[in-house]
Formats: sequence, C-alpha cells, structure tokens
Amino acid sequence: MYEDVELSLKNLREAFEVLSREKSEKKNKFLKRLAEKIDENREYLKAENSKDVERARELKVKESLIDRLVLNDKRIDEMIESCQIVESLRDPIGEVVDSFVREDGLTIYKVRVPIGVLAIIYESRPNVTIETSILALKSGNTILLKGGSDALNSNKALVKLIKQALDDAGLPRNSVELVEHTDRSVVDYILKQRGLIDLIIPRGGKSLIDYVVSNAKMPVLETGAGVCHIFVDESADIDKSIAVIDNAKTQRPGTCNAVETLLVHRKIASEFLPKLKKLFDDKKVEIRGCVETRKVIECAPATEEDWSTEYLDLIISVKVVSSLDEAIEHIKKYSTKHSEAILTENYSNAMKFLNAVDSSTVYVNASTRFTDGGQFGMGAEIGISTQKFHARGPVGLKELTTTKFIVFGDYHVRK
Amino acid sequence: MYEDVELSLKNLREAFEVLSREKSEKKNKFLKRLAEKIDENREYLKAENSKDVERARELKVKESLIDRLVLNDKRIDEMIESCQIVESLRDPIGEVVDSFVREDGLTIYKVRVPIGVLAIIYESRPNVTIETSILALKSGNTILLKGGSDALNSNKALVKLIKQALDDAGLPRNSVELVEHTDRSVVDYILKQRGLIDLIIPRGGKSLIDYVVSNAKMPVLETGAGVCHIFVDESADIDKSIAVIDNAKTQRPGTCNAVETLLVHRKIASEFLPKLKKLFDDKKVEIRGCVETRKVIECAPATEEDWSTEYLDLIISVKVVSSLDEAIEHIKKYSTKHSEAILTENYSNAMKFLNAVDSSTVYVNASTRFTDGGQFGMGAEIGISTQKFHARGPVGLKELTTTKFIVFGDYHVRK
Repeated sequence: MYEDVELSLKNLREAFEVLSREKSEKKNKFLKRLAEKIDENREYLKAENSKDVERARELKVKESLIDRLVLNDKRIDEMIESCQIVESLRDPIGEVVDSFVREDGLTIYKVRVPIGVLAIIYESRPNVTIETSILALKSGNTILLKGGSDALNSNKALVKLIKQALDDAGLPRNSVELVEHTDRSVVDYILKQRGLIDLIIPRGGKSLIDYVVSNAKMPVLETGAGVCHIFVDESADIDKSIAVIDNAKTQRPGTCNAVETLLVHRKIASEFLPKLKKLFDDKKVEIRGCVETRKVIECAPATEEDWSTEYLDLIISVKVVSSLDEAIEHIKKYSTKHSEAILTENYSNAMKFLNAVDSSTVYVNASTRFTDGGQFGMGAEIGISTQKFHARGPVGLKELTTTKFIVFGDYHVRK
Repeated sequence: MYEDVELSLKNLREAFEVLSREKSEKKNKFLKRLAEKIDENREYLKAENSKDVERARELKVKESLIDRLVLNDKRIDEMIESCQIVESLRDPIGEVVDSFVREDGLTIYKVRVPIGVLAIIYESRPNVTIETSILALKSGNTILLKGGSDALNSNKALVKLIKQALDDAGLPRNSVELVEHTDRSVVDYILKQRGLIDLIIPRGGKSLIDYVVSNAKMPVLETGAGVCHIFVDESADIDKSIAVIDNAKTQRPGTCNAVETLLVHRKIASEFLPKLKKLFDDKKVEIRGCVETRKVIECAPATEEDWSTEYLDLIISVKVVSSLDEAIEHIKKYSTKHSEAILTENYSNAMKFLNAVDSSTVYVNASTRFTDGGQFGMGAEIGISTQKFHARGPVGLKELTTTKFIVFGDYHVRK
C-alpha cells in the first residue's frame, strides 16, 4: 500500500550504513552547499511556498497558522543561517563523553555515535524541514520527513535542494526522504515500522503528539505543545514584568514557547492588571480572566478549558492567586512541562520555583520565548522535548546521538 | 483487581514528591543503615532464600539458574559492598551537566533531576532487588519492584530491610514497593500504567524483554539479553586468547555478559580449535561447531538456532570465518547488541571492529565479562541497556536521572 515509503525506509537504512561513518568534512561540505542552494533558489522557494499559502488562505486557515507556513526572505535568511551555524558546530560523533581507566589498565571510553534512521512527523512550518534535516545529517543519522500536507509544495522544493547538496558533497542522496502522501493512514503505517525506524519525533499540536505517543511501536521523542505559564510574584518589578509578558505573548504568538497563562499574585493585582490591560488593548490581545481578574479589569471570562489551552494566538488567560504555592499547584495541574517563568525580586521564592516546577525549562525573570535551540547556543533544534527520557528541552545535535563503550585491553580477564 | 498495586503506585508518587527533593545526607544515611541491616540479618536472609532455592530444586530448575537465585555469604557481602559503594558515590542530583551564558547575560544551566516513579520487572537474582533499589533511591526516584515469583521470599525479606532502613533515615518508607502477586496478568496491569509509572525497566531473558517492549504504554529502558560474540583474528595471541575465552565463558556462565558464540579466523582454526577443545573438555563446556569446526575437532553440530541462543550455561557455539568482514556480518545478524570482542594484534582490524560493531560495548583484547556497572566504576547497576535511547550499556546512577534547564535572568526579553 505504501511501497514507496517502504522503499524510502530501505534506502534510509542503506544510506545510514554509509553516512554514520562519514567524516565531518563531507557533512560540512553538504551544509555549505545547502546554504548556497537555498540562497540561489530564493524565488523558486517563494513561488512553491506561495502555492501552499494561497491554498491555506482559500481554506480560511487562521492568520497565526498561516504565519507559520510563510517562507519570506527573513525566514529564508534564517534557514541559511541555520546551515551556517550547524556547519560551524563541532561534530558530536566520536566525542568521548566519559572515560574510566581501571587499576588493571583496562581503558573504557564512552563515545558518541549516531542513533540510526529517524522519522519526524510535523505540521506547517517549512523551516522545520531544513532544521531537522541538517541536525539529523550532521549527527550521522538519516531521516524520514512527514510534513503537513499544507506545506507539501514548500517541503518538496526544500528536499530537492537537500538532495542536490548531498550529491554535491558525495553523500548518499537517500539520506533524507520525504513522505508525499497526504492521507492520515500513512502516519499509522509509519508508526508501525519498529526496527526500520529507530526513533520517531512528533512535532506539532497536542493531538498529533498524543496520537504518536499512543500508537508508535518505536521509541518516541516527545516534542511538546506548550501551555507556558508566567507567575508574577508580589515583589516583581511591575513595569519590567509587563515588558517580559509582552515579549512572551506577542513577539511570535504561534510558537510553543509563547506564554498562554498568567498567574498574578493577589497583592499586586490591582496595580498590575490595569497596566496589563492597557498594553494588551494596544496590542489587540484578548484577555480571558478568572472571576477575581474580572473584578479588577474588564475582560472575557476564562473557562476551565482555557487553563489547558495552547492558543497559539493573541489570547491570554489570567488567574489571580494568593501565593507562590497556589501558582505552583496550578502549574502542576495544567502545565505541559514545556517552559514556565517566575517574575520576582524575592530570592527564596525564585529558588523554590526553580526546584518545584517540573518543566523542561524554568526561568527567573525572563521571557519563556528563549526556550529554543538557537537561543540556547545549540545552533538549531529539531523541537522542544517535554518528556523526561533521553532528551529534555531543545533537541539539538547532541540529543540526536547515543553512546557506546569502546574498551581497549591487553587480553584482560575479569577476576 | 490489583487495588494493592494501585495503592502502591499512589504511595510511590507521594513518596517521590518528598524523596526527589531530599538532600544526599539522608539518602546516604539510608544506605549506611541498609548495609548494617543486611549484615545483621544474614541468617534471616539465608533462611528466607533457602525456601526459594528448595522450591526451585523441587521444580528441577537447572543448576545455572539456581546459581542466580542463591544468596550465600559471598553474595550478601557483595550487596553490602554495593550499598557502601553507592553511598560513596557523588549524588548526581543538581549536577550541572552543561551551561551557557548568552551575550546578553541570560544564564542557562542544564541540571540533573530525578525521573519519577520507576518500575522494574525482573527474574531470579535477589541481589537485583538491592542494586536496583539503592540506585533508584540515591538518584531521587521511587520504585516499584516486580521480581520473579521464584525469588519471592528472598525479595520480601530484602524489601522489609529496605523499608526499615528508610524509616531509620527519615525517608518515606513507601519509596520502594514490592509487587507480591505471582500471576502473569499483574505484569499486563503494570505495563498499562502510563502516567503513574514514568519509566519501566525489564531485566531478564529475551522473551520477558520482548513482551515488555511490545506491551508497555510508558517509556521502556530495555536491558538486554546477551548473545555475546568473541572474534579470534588470525593475528591473535592464541594462548592469551584461550585464557580470555575461558574467563568469558566459565567465570559465571549464567550472566548476560558471558560469551555465547566464538568466531574463529580460518587461518588459525587448525592450531586454535584443538587448544580450545582441550580447555573446554577440562571445564565441561559443550562445544557446538559449524561444519568447518567439526572438520578440525570433534563436537556437536551447531544449528541455525544456536547462533541466536543465549545459553546462560556451559555451552558455546563456534563458527569458522574467512575474514573480519564475515565476522562483522555474523555479529550484525545475530548479536543482541550487548557486548562483543575482537582478539587481535592487528591495529587496523581492531579499529575497524570498534567502529563497525553496533553494540553497547565493544572490546579489543578483553573478556566480555567486564560489561558491568561495578566493573565500569559506576558502583552498581540496574542492568545493561541494549537499546540506543536514553542510556546504553551499564545503567548506573546518572542513567536514572533526567535534566532540566534552569535559567537566571534580569527581566530578559527575546529580540
């Protein structure tokens, strides 16, 4: 039924046997060529992308989602920059991450090695195609890409350039394979290929992730939806806090690290909330508040559902809490364990929040928007892991490797 | 149906909320008390264990498996030593494993944190009860133990001592819970508890592991059966090789790191095999040889099934190969990716073997018996991971942690 995908997986395995042992030199040549190719093909990429965007507009997709889909010169520049950054990053393969020399001289090295054939199932953003592929390839893995059907033309164009750059660098062109089927059942087919796919990475909304986690027969690297919280403590600097919240909500609302829920300490609610409302009225952000919030400012009511909703849009839910503990309890109940922040001048509250909140990234006095491989100095990322196994937080080059022990002896025997 | 297990899981989650934030001081006090308790209760432990051993004898269990079950003074000494070693190990929790200070001053630390509620499903060896519990607890996790029904009396006695030691140290006594049901369906019940169990670890034979991997709804840390190979290259020192193989097969044949298949280079077969036969005749090891082996020495024939069998017994399969490449191909086909060794004096062959063999541990000129947390300087281990995800090779303290990012800012916003 999906003979072409079956063939892709076979090709990816064969390509892995070659790619996993290639030196950095060729992998970096590929990255250099890919950056050049993307730059040379700007008009082609934008033309293919505009087909996808037009179709989305026809389908009345909401603007924050169309924003994710668009390839403009700024985003193309970012893709080129990602290639250049990943080229400049040290190849993780072969790195000795630990060593132990026994008293008897037996010498044990723990070294990084590639994982194998990866697969990623993702939604609209075409830049994911580039970021994922370059990270997978530089770390010696091959990868099956299943992007959103709304970005198919963009992804086909990008994968064409990737394969040309692989060719130019003398690497197997089958190291990256795009699934072009747009029906849902191809996902079910992919999820069953244990043994052929070593690791699967879902990247998108909660329903996609839950579906993959529940149905995949191979290990899953869960990259998460983000219902991110900011708690404004009573001691926070209010004007600086407003600036942080503005950044966390409006800089790019369609991303998983944008804030969705604000928890405000009761003692500062009457001073803080009117300032918040003024800002968000200007920025056209809809506030959905708890009963207590609505006693201070005029806004829509927040329902139980709001507390667990990832809006990905210019909407924010606001709840007044009576203590740090109540804020932590709310986060424990509704967080997707992505990113949470406390804004405070109180040292003990800051340390308590850092310890007690069980999320991939926990901030004191900073915007949640920093949770990103690029911002964290990892070059680029394949997603944000919200699980605790293997990798947590931004998944960059090192997170796409495993290790093995290599041991040098002189006919050693165990006593 | 399993209300008691359900209650255990609830208790473990509550205990985790406390234990995960405890300082090393209390955890080390627990380890010290446990070592004392085990020492004080030697006769009690041996008496409870002898009930299990007698029952196994009645059931005509084979001696190599009974060997795994027995608690004698030497094994009790080893358990005490494990407690002392783990007490002496640095607590991994809070360790900063990576850091990044951005140009704008935002300071990012990647720190080790506990995973949560673990579960282990294992077979006969009662020492696993101690080694698993102390590693889980020292790394801040709580743990559900489902041991083999043949070791139930031994495990009940050990868990009783663990709970007493937890009490003495002021830690939650519910941090370790033993499943006492001996029916198979309790395993199915456990495998469904996604959300309540964060990580499940099967430790035992291939069928147990396959069953857990196929049916668990939560992440699995696959600890593996070992069909371990040694390749004797044409340049190997034959007498030293014989000593290594003797160690790898006979020192403790019931363990997963014992060698099961020998691959012998054709050019040295006529000199090597008779020496091997003399050794193994003396040590009462049964040789099952390929057609070519049987042209050189008298032995039973190896069937196709032998190449993928973990004997865990005084049996070894032997195959003559014509090259290093043929040896690597055989390993690729039949290995469980646990431990493999090359015995050689040829530098290039050694390096090629290290690179090409995709197992958790790959040796040059050493016995496969070294693949063990204690031997690798990790204190003790919870098993040998033969998967590539999260942890590979011996699983010690650090492998039972995850990380989170904690970020210190000064009202930083993303540009």
